[in-house]
Amino acid sequence: MNDTITLLQQHRSIRKFTKDPVTAEQLDAILAAAQQASTSSNMQAYSVIGITDKALRSELAKLAGNQVYVEESPVFLVWCADLYRWEQAAGRHYEGEMPSTTENFIIGTVDASLAAQNAAVAAESLGLGIVYIGGIRNQPQRVSELLQLPQHVYPVFGMCIGVPDQAPLDRPRLPRSAVYFENTYKLDNLSSAIDAYDETLSAYMKARSNGKADTTWSQAMAGKAGPVRIHMRSFLQKQGFKLE
Amino acid sequence: MNDTITLLQQHRSIRKFTKDPVTAEQLDAILAAAQQASTSSNMQAYSVIGITDKALRSELAKLAGNQVYVEESPVFLVWCADLYRWEQAAGRHYEGEMPSTTENFIIGTVDASLAAQNAAVAAESLGLGIVYIGGIRNQPQRVSELLQLPQHVYPVFGMCIGVPDQAPLDRPRLPRSAVYFENTYKLDNLSSAIDAYDETLSAYMKARSNGKADTTWSQAMAGKAGPVRIHMRSFLQKQGFKLE
Repeated sequence: MNDTITLLQQHRSIRKFTKDPVTAEQLDAILAAAQQASTSSNMQAYSVIGITDKALRSELAKLAGNQVYVEESPVFLVWCADLYRWEQAAGRHYEGEMPSTTENFIIGTVDASLAAQNAAVAAESLGLGIVYIGGIRNQPQRVSELLQLPQHVYPVFGMCIGVPDQAPLDRPRLPRSAVYFENTYKLDNLSSAIDAYDETLSAYMKARSNGKADTTWSQAMAGKAGPVRIHMRSFLQKQGFKLE
Repeated sequence: MNDTITLLQQHRSIRKFTKDPVTAEQLDAILAAAQQASTSSNMQAYSVIGITDKALRSELAKLAGNQVYVEESPVFLVWCADLYRWEQAAGRHYEGEMPSTTENFIIGTVDASLAAQNAAVAAESLGLGIVYIGGIRNQPQRVSELLQLPQHVYPVFGMCIGVPDQAPLDRPRLPRSAVYFENTYKLDNLSSAIDAYDETLSAYMKARSNGKADTTWSQAMAGKAGPVRIHMRSFLQKQGFKLE
């Protein structure tokens, strides 16, 4: 329908980059797009940390699960939910104890995500590729120490940006009927939608692995059912998020 | 630098819409763009509910704080974090009790946000305007009942979409230096950045209100320092999110 929609619909994560740099002008446009994203009551409850130091990058790559693209991508950003700045601003006029609610935790997490997704779209519009790095939550305490994050700031995810050096297949998504409903959540068709998507994804895995793997979606999802990053709650509380 | 970046940088929230419809083709393109957004380990841990029923829309508008545009916008979407679908899929292969962690809560909240922001950008690329509705969290229990959300699904925010019938001023954002850092979080310049942004925003408020208001940013932020949506934690627990 237009170039932007084509761009959005063609997104795929890029995990291999050429040595070409991301220019200062490109990074500036990417960050300007991020800053213009919607934000809850103009709180702008996020911060972005660009990791330019090589030793620090190497350490973060290890902490994020030894992902080589975290070390080697031209740009690596850590997107943080940030209620610290808001507290500093509000504290100029507010006498009481500042609340540390689940609501504010949601606001920071959403604000960071909306800004990051604008950055991702801006980068892709410039011919760059990106991948989100959830692995930054593998060892969030150590990441927060390295980045010197103050209380009430936490790293939500990282993002690699660079010129793509691969053209991965488009991974099919869930059928629309499993994701979008009118007026009320529909339970009726879920089981058959999972059946259908299991088949689709198994075929995709076969194509991507040259026949070596045929994991279905529900099998892949079962792999996430064990104790994954169960430290997040205690980490967040150390970081000052009471989640009241 | 290109049309997409111009579009992203020109975003402003639209709260007044013409009577023109959003076509089925437009909504389809918007939802396709949303589905293509990045998602943690392909969990796609979100759902979208489009509210087409007039009585339901009217009720939601009341629950969200009597915002007339929630009632009158051509399209109103409720974006939900959804771990229910994942549980149903994983449960086909996983025997143990499914975890209900803070980590999974973050994944659902982020996945819903990335998909929604893609939808927002797609809509704007079609000449439509959008506004996020955090007010959907004012009475989330009642909203969840009306939308028949199963356990482990919660409404993160709403979104109005339609043809803009206003051209609001561009609200200036925080100085870049307050939001973006290299390598480590910087505390040094925060106070002066807040000073500068207080002035900028006060001037913007004056322009927007024809001189009637001159609220600074830190004043506005202090308005958010009291007990705001303190029900979220107990609501989420009722909704099955243990936040372990």
